[in-house]
Amino acid sequence: MPEAQGSPLARAIATTYGTPAVVVDLDIVERNIERLQVACDTAGLANRPHIKTHKSPVLAALQRDKGAKGITCQKLGEAEVMAAGGLDDILISYNLIGEEKMARLARLVREGVNIRPCADNPVAVDGYADAARAAERTLGVLVECDTGRERAGVETPGEAIELARRIAGHQGLRFDGLLLYAPENKMPESQAFLDAVQAGLAEHGLEAKIVSTGGTPNLRQLGAITGATEHRSGTSIFNDRMMMACGAATLADCALAVYATVVSRAGPDRGILDSGSKTLTADPGGGLDGYGLIREYPQARIKGFAEEHGMLDLGACDRKPAIGETVSIVPNHVCVVVNMVDQLVTVRGNELVGPIPVAARGKIV
Amino acid sequence: MPEAQGSPLARAIATTYGTPAVVVDLDIVERNIERLQVACDTAGLANRPHIKTHKSPVLAALQRDKGAKGITCQKLGEAEVMAAGGLDDILISYNLIGEEKMARLARLVREGVNIRPCADNPVAVDGYADAARAAERTLGVLVECDTGRERAGVETPGEAIELARRIAGHQGLRFDGLLLYAPENKMPESQAFLDAVQAGLAEHGLEAKIVSTGGTPNLRQLGAITGATEHRSGTSIFNDRMMMACGAATLADCALAVYATVVSRAGPDRGILDSGSKTLTADPGGGLDGYGLIREYPQARIKGFAEEHGMLDLGACDRKPAIGETVSIVPNHVCVVVNMVDQLVTVRGNELVGPIPVAARGKIV
Repeated sequence: MPEAQGSPLARAIATTYGTPAVVVDLDIVERNIERLQVACDTAGLANRPHIKTHKSPVLAALQRDKGAKGITCQKLGEAEVMAAGGLDDILISYNLIGEEKMARLARLVREGVNIRPCADNPVAVDGYADAARAAERTLGVLVECDTGRERAGVETPGEAIELARRIAGHQGLRFDGLLLYAPENKMPESQAFLDAVQAGLAEHGLEAKIVSTGGTPNLRQLGAITGATEHRSGTSIFNDRMMMACGAATLADCALAVYATVVSRAGPDRGILDSGSKTLTADPGGGLDGYGLIREYPQARIKGFAEEHGMLDLGACDRKPAIGETVSIVPNHVCVVVNMVDQLVTVRGNELVGPIPVAARGKIV
Repeated sequence: MPEAQGSPLARAIATTYGTPAVVVDLDIVERNIERLQVACDTAGLANRPHIKTHKSPVLAALQRDKGAKGITCQKLGEAEVMAAGGLDDILISYNLIGEEKMARLARLVREGVNIRPCADNPVAVDGYADAARAAERTLGVLVECDTGRERAGVETPGEAIELARRIAGHQGLRFDGLLLYAPENKMPESQAFLDAVQAGLAEHGLEAKIVSTGGTPNLRQLGAITGATEHRSGTSIFNDRMMMACGAATLADCALAVYATVVSRAGPDRGILDSGSKTLTADPGGGLDGYGLIREYPQARIKGFAEEHGMLDLGACDRKPAIGETVSIVPNHVCVVVNMVDQLVTVRGNELVGPIPVAARGKIV
């Protein structure tokens, strides 16, 4: 049944690795890395890509070699993997809390890894002071500011200033700057917040050497925050349906696809993919229709999931995939899909290259 | 800040393993295993638990030692891990398709593993014939029937009979029976489907030695399908919020919890857990409110996620957790949560026992 097996590349992937396989095109990856670097250079910002998307020291090194100043990690376990992979200048955009984490942070610092965590509360700050003491080194800390996203971050400039002073007051800690993830539609508010913090810091003889902004959707307004010194973008290395939906990427910019095989065609308008929520994840992508875009059958809808079943609605398709055919799917949210697998299969155009490990997969601690 | 760190067990888990940690109570696990075995024994059905929930040969062996006849796997990669872990009599409740999978299936069969796949289409059946030929063994195959769930499975008794005949017609294959996952509210329809298939099979001199039913929600009506010979239940070993919602379990039956730490309390009614969609997953649990039940703060709502942030709405709480406090969360859907981590931390009551590996984690191929 060769006609039922999809493109030559899909067939090669299915035969070599089996499906589902999470596949990235290195040609597009390199283009995306280059584009981010140029965008940061043009805006006069240092580039500090977030590795939560790819979780691979190999790809982080590629970003560094193209000009990235350093990297961003969300969790300490990711930073440990990156440091072991030779990456340095690591920002952790997260409150690290608890003695188990402080012991590991101290170890990294003592080993000479250039790492900075951030804080939005005194508990985190005081823990960092313990870690610095244990490491017998000075630790730079950023204050996370929430300018409207309602995630982590202090909610007022006054709290930011107070926390910066607390950091500066600890022996062993150094106040290094501010971390923002401005909502895409709240740039003026975010600017006003930042300006107020900067003014207050100056009054206390403090300075934010680093002002780190974030987000791939925000790449379109890079430079909109005056006073920013660097930007964190994760998703842009691969892109996904969510980035397409917000206008940050086109289908041609999507470097990652899940290759999956149609394993059942129970009814004329139904089909089952061998990829369910344990591969594509149940991430709704902020309200997208369905759970992925099938490139070969864009009219097909992945309408639901079981853990290993992707339920296809083929009602709107003029052509329909046959049982045994392998298709490629741009997922809703690429960062969570990468985190499901131990390796990414790499290709260049229609040529298989080989696997690279997702070394920081599952490093949630 | 000892008062902010939660219960002694939570503190021990956070200090020893860090959070988030996925924790199972072996006392409850054993009770759940026992209860499933008794339910199957009482109904006169063989017990064939689905290992997709725990993905651990250690726990599968516990199920076998308590009386399970065999196990169920969804993917070949899971079966390979279970076979390597000493489990035998493996049913794969899934269409396996493609030459890469047939080579691996043939290898297991040749090595003497007692394994049966299922099929709902001729492509899968013909592939199994290839695998049997390559293994130089006879392979038993089940026909998957869809009695209304609209997942995989043939949709009519006629198709089931035709497929059984196709299996029996292949040298090297043996028609062994039928696989159902009856919708909870379609028992009479499922019975009628099964009766029609059985009658048709008899006309052609065929017999379904195995009639395998499935589902933890269906445990409440175990024995409702006359002619069933065995039952597959996965989730009942741990249970979760979904099983509580459908009445298949109580909170006391939930053996698994995600231990997570509050890392931010940005506003009086807001909080952030160090567990987001990369731990608890975005699985909505079939329409539950929020993404998990915090046992210590049942009025708290996990209202949304970032990848590593769980957004807490504490508006309805009379007591509120402090920064640094570790809480325990019963997830919406336990099977996908286990699949996020490389190990389960085990406890008995308030005592830490130790980690067991999730050996089949991510075995999606």
